[in-house]
Amino acid sequence: MPQSRQLHLGAFMRPVSLHTGAWRYPGAWPDANFNFAHLKYFVQRLESACFDAFFMADHLAVLNMPINALKRSQTPTSFEPFTLLSALSVVTERIGLVATASTTFDEPYHIARRFASLDHLSGGRAGWNLVTTSNPDAALNFGRDDHMEHDERYRRAREFYDVVRGLWDSWDDDAFVRDTQSGLFFDPDKLHVLDHKGPYLSVRGPLNIARPIQGRPVVVQAGSSEAGKQIAAETADAVFTAQSTLAAGKRFYADVKGRLDRLGRPRDHLKILPGAFIVVGDSREQAQEKRAFLDTFVHDDSGIASLSIALGHDVSGFDLDGPLPEIPETNASQSARQRVLELARDKGLTIRQLAQRVGGYSGLEMVGTPADIADQMEQWLVEEGSDGFNVMFPYLPAGLDDVVDKVVPELQRRGLFRRAYTGTTLRDHLGLPRPDNPFFSKAVRA
Amino acid sequence: MPQSRQLHLGAFMRPVSLHTGAWRYPGAWPDANFNFAHLKYFVQRLESACFDAFFMADHLAVLNMPINALKRSQTPTSFEPFTLLSALSVVTERIGLVATASTTFDEPYHIARRFASLDHLSGGRAGWNLVTTSNPDAALNFGRDDHMEHDERYRRAREFYDVVRGLWDSWDDDAFVRDTQSGLFFDPDKLHVLDHKGPYLSVRGPLNIARPIQGRPVVVQAGSSEAGKQIAAETADAVFTAQSTLAAGKRFYADVKGRLDRLGRPRDHLKILPGAFIVVGDSREQAQEKRAFLDTFVHDDSGIASLSIALGHDVSGFDLDGPLPEIPETNASQSARQRVLELARDKGLTIRQLAQRVGGYSGLEMVGTPADIADQMEQWLVEEGSDGFNVMFPYLPAGLDDVVDKVVPELQRRGLFRRAYTGTTLRDHLGLPRPDNPFFSKAVRA
Ligand SMILES: Cc1cc2nc3c(=O)[nH]c(=O)nc-3n(C[C@H](O)[C@H](O)[C@H](O)COP(=O)(O)O)c2cc1C
Ligand SMILES: Cc1cc2nc3c(=O)[nH]c(=O)nc-3n(C[C@H](O)[C@H](O)[C@H](O)COP(=O)(O)O)c2cc1C
Repeated sequence: MPQSRQLHLGAFMRPVSLHTGAWRYPGAWPDANFNFAHLKYFVQRLESACFDAFFMADHLAVLNMPINALKRSQTPTSFEPFTLLSALSVVTERIGLVATASTTFDEPYHIARRFASLDHLSGGRAGWNLVTTSNPDAALNFGRDDHMEHDERYRRAREFYDVVRGLWDSWDDDAFVRDTQSGLFFDPDKLHVLDHKGPYLSVRGPLNIARPIQGRPVVVQAGSSEAGKQIAAETADAVFTAQSTLAAGKRFYADVKGRLDRLGRPRDHLKILPGAFIVVGDSREQAQEKRAFLDTFVHDDSGIASLSIALGHDVSGFDLDGPLPEIPETNASQSARQRVLELARDKGLTIRQLAQRVGGYSGLEMVGTPADIADQMEQWLVEEGSDGFNVMFPYLPAGLDDVVDKVVPELQRRGLFRRAYTGTTLRDHLGLPRPDNPFFSKAVRA
Repeated sequence: MPQSRQLHLGAFMRPVSLHTGAWRYPGAWPDANFNFAHLKYFVQRLESACFDAFFMADHLAVLNMPINALKRSQTPTSFEPFTLLSALSVVTERIGLVATASTTFDEPYHIARRFASLDHLSGGRAGWNLVTTSNPDAALNFGRDDHMEHDERYRRAREFYDVVRGLWDSWDDDAFVRDTQSGLFFDPDKLHVLDHKGPYLSVRGPLNIARPIQGRPVVVQAGSSEAGKQIAAETADAVFTAQSTLAAGKRFYADVKGRLDRLGRPRDHLKILPGAFIVVGDSREQAQEKRAFLDTFVHDDSGIASLSIALGHDVSGFDLDGPLPEIPETNASQSARQRVLELARDKGLTIRQLAQRVGGYSGLEMVGTPADIADQMEQWLVEEGSDGFNVMFPYLPAGLDDVVDKVVPELQRRGLFRRAYTGTTLRDHLGLPRPDNPFFSKAVRA
């Protein structure tokens, strides 16, 4: 049976890569956090490969790690997403621009407005990665002693989304008539005052910006808890998820698409895009060597701290070149601990290697020739493990160039990925309809 | 005595002009609120004339006016300042980029970070117009029933500024060593944790962005109350003020510079820039005709509402083509009322003309030939009424082109304004030193 579905590809970006050893990799650009020219290069290359979106992660605190580990890493500081993506909108024409923004530490009026503004600037290419913020230290930067409790975060997030969506619909699409003759700038019948009053938020509106080009910017969700999956099914256009194996991916896919069925939403109105860390070689062996070489750049200080955190047990006293001994159960996250223990066992890693893996990157990865990688992506697509991927690059620019120059052409040859953009907005790329404004639907107006 | 001081010129921008009739003026661009190409044209022309800064006003609510008046005006909606200025930073190289942001309705961590990011993107051209927000309706969009009381707003603003400044100093200028050999990305001794706990704000830090290029982005203040002037003297690098006459300007200038003396700050570390609405003609008569013609585009609905608000008295029942009768005293702002009554008397305006003036623009204006305007600007500079101006354009693009093509060359001929940028940052243009990081001054380190 011919495969008619196509892959969607986002690029999950941190300027220097999210792998904490990447800045030391030969040929890397360690100053990319504050080098606009480098980021321009990345986004333009990705656009030349017809990627759906350029996706900026975001955190509201310098990561919570012992300073001895932190000082080894390029992650704590970089451009703020809105300023960066707005600047990148000027040097691109088609690729979607997705910014992460928090419902826990921001105001819906600001968020609605900024995404609408980015959408206008970019001609309909804005997306919002809606997060409740994973780093609990952020609370300390916003006047709180503790992170808001998990379920409460999600209840606020749900209401926050409703407010943002209502604010985006403040003006009808054709509200601004600008009739110089009569002196009518906008039609007041096409202005809607939200007047929202809820348990967490009270926002009158209207928003001081015209309705976004896309009607509503694309909403992406990355939660994986019950509450996270449910809010995604109810509100999101795309889900970004960490799924380490195809089996886990298929369970997640069936779970979330099943929620859509129960909500009466069409299945293809929510795209599921697991993160995939891609390392390309001319041979499988070369790719694996690159992958192993990259991990050697994770400094012991950083790797040991990460591994100790993941296990809930200080491993710094062990022989780093020996295998991991039995570790007693602790209070640490069970799933993180389990994943690390499996990794140690399956790959036969020493403690140092394990620490470097955990301190660098240890989720889903595809390491091999362009054909190997295309095979895996195709399998995930065909077997309904995903609708595409959010690609993570091991080091930049070379790791990104490899995907653009070698993997994407292979996917295109197989008919799995577009050779040219067919639309202009991020909704177009993702195959999502432009939503009507419910406050001014034709039925209401008639 | 030769005049050695030079003018500083900012452009106080709303995309279609802040005059509410401007969008109807022949040749205007009524869609500029959401047309990036137009804004790019404006900023590039201003840069070609060596303006110090491009300055975006901002409001957090659709203006509080009766809808019947509001619908006549282009002001309620436009791009959000950070997204817009970030985009404009890509198409310019020297001109300063000043965004308005509120201390009442935002968080210092966000504000510090966004200005730092804009400063990095633009190579040191960011400025913050620090406002406590003039439109009370904004409160309703941010979970409050009422605007915070005036003095409390300023107390919060003062603390807010201290936090932002402290966050900007989170990292020393040379904290990021990126030593690939040893694996040290930053020097932990050059990281400062603010740990601020005050009456209004509690913010731990550090900021997740490197120290701004300018050390600290330029801070602009526009308050005119006692509290406003004092916070300006204590914190600001420039003051944007509404002063209708040279006499008032000189009083304001002496007042604020006197505060600097008492604080031990050098007088030239704070530039005072009144707003000036500039209308250029080939002859004085032609300029005055343009000015009058512009006012005819203020719709009666809009003018009458504005005049009634300014007087605290509904004037819609009067004969619009007659003079203003006696108006009983009311609760409205005394200074606004007084200014309107003087305007009616001094210029002998009918009610309609007065309404059009008040509904359009009624502050300091310079209307005449390029030489007339240069004369006035020179007088303000020489007599210490100001250090320059924040120029407002009556209509765009023509009103802006007139200033760039005719007034600036005249100022340059007189040696009152630069012919080329001599520095690269906004601090350079304003003649302000780059501040040290007090947490890492050489004395502390030694
Ligand atoms: C691939 C991926 C990317 C994420 N990116 C961010 C991010 O940029 N910022 C953030 O605060 N949280 C981020 N998160 C965290 C999620 O928003 C969420 O907090 C986390 O997945 C835990 O899910 P849960 O809260 O539903 O249990 C990301 C999560 C995943 C899986
Ligand atoms: C020329 C000028 C421009 C201003 N621009 C803004 C603005 O963009 N946004 C805003 O909220 N307030 C703006 N303001 C208002 C001031 O921030 C301040 O609220 C007002 O001048 C009243 O001063 P006071 O609060 O010290 O009495 C501006 C004021 C002036 C004089």
